[in-house]
Amino acid sequence: MSSNWGRSLRLSIFGESHGRSVGVVIDGLPAGLAIDENALALFMARRAPGQGRHTTSRREADAPVIQSGFHLGRTTGTPLCALIENADTRSSDYAEVSRLARPSHADYTGFVRYGGHNDIRGSGHFSGRLTAPLVFAGGVAKQALAVCGVAVGAHIRSIHGVDDAPLDPVCVTAAELDAVAAKPFPVLDDTRGEAMLAEIEAARSAGDSVGGVVECCAVGMPAGVGSPMFDGVENAVASLLFGIPGVRGLEFGDGFASAALRGSENNDPMRAENGRILCETNRHGGVLGGISSGMPLLMRAAFKPTPTIAKEQRTVDYMTDENASITGKGRHDPCIVPRAVPCVESAVALALLELLLEGGNPIGFTDLAR
Amino acid sequence: MSSNWGRSLRLSIFGESHGRSVGVVIDGLPAGLAIDENALALFMARRAPGQGRHTTSRREADAPVIQSGFHLGRTTGTPLCALIENADTRSSDYAEVSRLARPSHADYTGFVRYGGHNDIRGSGHFSGRLTAPLVFAGGVAKQALAVCGVAVGAHIRSIHGVDDAPLDPVCVTAAELDAVAAKPFPVLDDTRGEAMLAEIEAARSAGDSVGGVVECCAVGMPAGVGSPMFDGVENAVASLLFGIPGVRGLEFGDGFASAALRGSENNDPMRAENGRILCETNRHGGVLGGISSGMPLLMRAAFKPTPTIAKEQRTVDYMTDENASITGKGRHDPCIVPRAVPCVESAVALALLELLLEGGNPIGFTDLAR
Amino acid sequence: MSSNWGRSLRLSIFGESHGRSVGVVIDGLPAGLAIDENALALFMARRAPGQGRHTTSRREADAPVIQSGFHLGRTTGTPLCALIENADTRSSDYAEVSRLARPSHADYTGFVRYGGHNDIRGSGHFSGRLTAPLVFAGGVAKQALAVCGVAVGAHIRSIHGVDDAPLDPVCVTAAELDAVAAKPFPVLDDTRGEAMLAEIEAARSAGDSVGGVVECCAVGMPAGVGSPMFDGVENAVASLLFGIPGVRGLEFGDGFASAALRGSENNDPMRAENGRILCETNRHGGVLGGISSGMPLLMRAAFKPTPTIAKEQRTVDYMTDENASITGKGRHDPCIVPRAVPCVESAVALALLELLLEGGNPIGFTDLAR
Amino acid sequence: MSSNWGRSLRLSIFGESHGRSVGVVIDGLPAGLAIDENALALFMARRAPGQGRHTTSRREADAPVIQSGFHLGRTTGTPLCALIENADTRSSDYAEVSRLARPSHADYTGFVRYGGHNDIRGSGHFSGRLTAPLVFAGGVAKQALAVCGVAVGAHIRSIHGVDDAPLDPVCVTAAELDAVAAKPFPVLDDTRGEAMLAEIEAARSAGDSVGGVVECCAVGMPAGVGSPMFDGVENAVASLLFGIPGVRGLEFGDGFASAALRGSENNDPMRAENGRILCETNRHGGVLGGISSGMPLLMRAAFKPTPTIAKEQRTVDYMTDENASITGKGRHDPCIVPRAVPCVESAVALALLELLLEGGNPIGFTDLAR
Repeated sequence: MSSNWGRSLRLSIFGESHGRSVGVVIDGLPAGLAIDENALALFMARRAPGQGRHTTSRREADAPVIQSGFHLGRTTGTPLCALIENADTRSSDYAEVSRLARPSHADYTGFVRYGGHNDIRGSGHFSGRLTAPLVFAGGVAKQALAVCGVAVGAHIRSIHGVDDAPLDPVCVTAAELDAVAAKPFPVLDDTRGEAMLAEIEAARSAGDSVGGVVECCAVGMPAGVGSPMFDGVENAVASLLFGIPGVRGLEFGDGFASAALRGSENNDPMRAENGRILCETNRHGGVLGGISSGMPLLMRAAFKPTPTIAKEQRTVDYMTDENASITGKGRHDPCIVPRAVPCVESAVALALLELLLEGGNPIGFTDLAR
Repeated sequence: MSSNWGRSLRLSIFGESHGRSVGVVIDGLPAGLAIDENALALFMARRAPGQGRHTTSRREADAPVIQSGFHLGRTTGTPLCALIENADTRSSDYAEVSRLARPSHADYTGFVRYGGHNDIRGSGHFSGRLTAPLVFAGGVAKQALAVCGVAVGAHIRSIHGVDDAPLDPVCVTAAELDAVAAKPFPVLDDTRGEAMLAEIEAARSAGDSVGGVVECCAVGMPAGVGSPMFDGVENAVASLLFGIPGVRGLEFGDGFASAALRGSENNDPMRAENGRILCETNRHGGVLGGISSGMPLLMRAAFKPTPTIAKEQRTVDYMTDENASITGKGRHDPCIVPRAVPCVESAVALALLELLLEGGNPIGFTDLAR
Repeated sequence: MSSNWGRSLRLSIFGESHGRSVGVVIDGLPAGLAIDENALALFMARRAPGQGRHTTSRREADAPVIQSGFHLGRTTGTPLCALIENADTRSSDYAEVSRLARPSHADYTGFVRYGGHNDIRGSGHFSGRLTAPLVFAGGVAKQALAVCGVAVGAHIRSIHGVDDAPLDPVCVTAAELDAVAAKPFPVLDDTRGEAMLAEIEAARSAGDSVGGVVECCAVGMPAGVGSPMFDGVENAVASLLFGIPGVRGLEFGDGFASAALRGSENNDPMRAENGRILCETNRHGGVLGGISSGMPLLMRAAFKPTPTIAKEQRTVDYMTDENASITGKGRHDPCIVPRAVPCVESAVALALLELLLEGGNPIGFTDLAR
Repeated sequence: MSSNWGRSLRLSIFGESHGRSVGVVIDGLPAGLAIDENALALFMARRAPGQGRHTTSRREADAPVIQSGFHLGRTTGTPLCALIENADTRSSDYAEVSRLARPSHADYTGFVRYGGHNDIRGSGHFSGRLTAPLVFAGGVAKQALAVCGVAVGAHIRSIHGVDDAPLDPVCVTAAELDAVAAKPFPVLDDTRGEAMLAEIEAARSAGDSVGGVVECCAVGMPAGVGSPMFDGVENAVASLLFGIPGVRGLEFGDGFASAALRGSENNDPMRAENGRILCETNRHGGVLGGISSGMPLLMRAAFKPTPTIAKEQRTVDYMTDENASITGKGRHDPCIVPRAVPCVESAVALALLELLLEGGNPIGFTDLAR
């Protein structure tokens, strides 16, 4: 197993970087959901490669062709499959990879896992290209959530230690999330963004790469969605998010910083206001006991630097178990974080839609969408 | 849904803090697995309350009674159910809770989620007491993993900002993990442990609480276990770990720190040695592309400070939507981190056993256990 | 895996015939569902042994003790666990079984499946006793369905070739289903019931056993519940029903008889009547394309004769692979069909509740229960 | 949900009859499995339409294009997706269907289930065309099983009451199964086949249709595969098989006939022979307690007559709830049973492969395939 996710909403993602196509089947979508294909294309374009100096020069139109489950502009309720053809593939770039493991990449672990049978061209099923169908599905989920008044957005929180301004955990609005999404480089503070771009450019000229953090937020989630123990908001988000290549950590609300606080500092005082129950601060990140609290949902995902770099590294020929050295070729992003922003949004949107579609909850998709 | 987890190995956890019992059904265990009930009791004792000044004064023997799936000292292969009776319950402590939401606790979210029908005595199903059956299951999983030569251990990495020494990510051994587990306060450096205890005591005297971080490690995992995308080691661990009350973040290897590095700093050079492929460093934490690399598996979980504190806090009566104030009563740990250590080990052990039991992998439980 | 079922509603059944207890965890029940424990006990009594000449002389009170998920007379929404102690166990009856496979019983297959580690006392996890927790869960499901106006009932359709009158597939009512359930021997035509009892008695005196067919019906199911392909009403019912020991076949509507008809004979003409769409006949059994049609749901399950008989049979000592002969001891029903009636009702009720709890459907539990 | 199946092996089927394509994603296949695409095409041709007088005149090449998971003639271990384009679609045939429910077809139930949003052209996702991807997956599963020495085959057991000779439940061989599969009309006794074809032709000339029964067998299954209760061979087969349009019943071994027998007549005596444990007869159909016994696995599925017929029938306009009459148009098989034979084989092969891939069993795919 690998690429199958969900219970009420079911994803099945397939494809390899240099195979015929990548795609996704989404089973369990409500029938009659209008999908704006232009908005979906714009969302997918935020992930697509070839858009600036900080991304790979591989160019892919990333035009999904819907195969099923969509008729007269609306979901039919039966499985929705979208296919994205692989066009610009240059497998010769990867000839060397077949023998030498890139350090901190999945070359060696994939070789062992699949007994040498996996398609390693362009990293195969391990490629970041597999986030294209994830983002397609996430874009559909975002449109479904919008019907319920839920908006999901994200920004680059830091790159190589350069921080953006944080989202306001209490007052963040859907409009702010839309505004940052519309930027070519999605940060709240563009001067910080310039500094980040300088870090990326410096890494690239040095034949190196940099990591970063994406911060994601959902506003409009009603209180009461999710469950304790294993079906909480955090578990659902995490089970998808760690499927995005390069994610090394995930935190909700104040996350690791909470571990250094006292309860009296970390607890969020509550207040009733106009018949609504609110928290005055939002260090809990909108989820308590696995269940949404009605406050903005806030989380951050850490991405490591792209492992494929132009510098020489010590490695191993895993076919012969001999020591060797490797120098990265191929077209790789010196920093995947900018393109990862819509991927994180997608993981969060799909997790929330799954929880809203789960039966038996007092608050579900159909209630909110009516 | 809430308390059901797994695919090849299936957990179903039930119970409330002040109900008749808590327990777990474990379905999918291999038949013929010897279980050392004494070792299991010792493992569970590490989580049990009432052991020191830093824990709640609630005393529970936490003696699991196996109902099924275990015969003549071995698993039968059919579902193993263990029941742990609730003995020392003082529900009167919680009388006030029924109306006033403890800030940053699940009182309010649980009320909304279950329409006011959930059993709130002692926090009900949201109680840390539900980790007792998790630790029972984790103890069984640890014994199963031991048959494969896999050892799982953990220590307190920090409390309220006071750090323990880290585990050596390359050279850590099963013996070191056993040694720290045997300590009453599981830290590598006991002088740092004393400083942590001082933090806990200071918080307690102030009617307050503190958070911390648990670091967990698995040694002996062969390379090649896990899958890309949604069935990776990280996803499996996360889907369980975020079920432990109070967890706010999770990172693997260098985690969030990797996000501030360049690729040339973060990548782990590889080397062949005596026919084995190794990494010279282990910033990747033993997992690449969702698949184990053969290096020690390393992760850290952040716990927030216990939300129930003796200090007065602003809150809301969620039955009437009126503002109010609350002062914590009941017997609560000023810091849950020491007792969380075996909980984290349990989540990791169960996740790894699940991956080893998955069919179709070239490396599975039955291969290793033979 | 073995005893775990469901997606929105999740069952985890555990226990062995002569172990400490049998029981079930039901996860995913809606919160706030009132459960009438007396009605539940009466339903379970229909399955309990020791009630007449046609059943085993083993006597079990079959008194379930609810451990969790139930508070102040209502479900809490968190997992409901019920435990049924095993009291009257006479394992000495089964001493011989440990070496000699009863023909057409699971002794040999269980031995191979579990490598000889399964608990074979009283057939262990393969015992009909495991239907006690299934019937507990089914009784809860029936009460949940009643909130939606759905009634599930069944009768003995035939024993050893002696037929009862069939249910009227178009006009059957909940009252008729209640009436037959209230009988000690649940048939529509009591004179046919007498003939069936005579067959059972004849088999018993001969040291033999007989099989039969149970016919089950659900009335009140709205049209539009279920899904095509793998989540249809038939798939859901079948996946549970074949878990009842002794079931060899299952058919919906006219079932196998339809295979001998022409379309013009088998199709059910439709008619609009008072704003409702009806079928004039109901050979389709209330389900088309996996989805309920609004007509009574009708199915039949075939049970083989109890394999354990007092007659001598040729068999094998599976420890030594030597030929042998066996004569059944122990207390076995000469016909399990009468006690199987509430088991079949339970499987059907649980399947329908699962489908009503699935998210994303236009018609769900919460809509109907409001 | 609708078209997602499995746990260790996961299917996700998508598509509509007159949409762009139908297809399937198969996740969880072992890596390195050689697939003979010619053999697969021959298997799919057995289901394809347009092959004789007894099938629809719709012609589809049914040429699956593998998108992923297959490289250098072998499975890669990552998800295998196959797409089958829809070429010969004549939606105008279905214009009337949009308003008038065909009796005993899913038109009305699908309309209610999807709130009128499903794609009804050519019956959409309810079409028999969706068995094309099922048969693709089944063909792959059959080749995987062959590696383990397991052969799956089927024949037409009856059409409109005309019976074929039965398979010998004890002595049936893989060669016999291959021989019947190679026939254009898959029956054991060709003279009976002629009589069946006459029934089909008579129905067709009368504008009518006929039903029938398919008998399926698997030989070479080792004893010990499957589990009691809900993961037995029967449950797994049933959960897939009821996904084939038109199936109304399923029985294993002697099935419904067993219900009319005594235990002494129905039990299969056992014998040790050359170190193997055998049954002298096989009324149990190769499965006891959900677990394979090592005897041939035998089952029968009942198919109703095609509901779409040329005769006039009373029905309802479900848009207006008005009574109406309908006369079938479109190109429909007067009997779907011949084309259903490979569908049944596929369901059985996929179910068995799933059980062999389940982890924790003592006998699994990897053991047998080595």
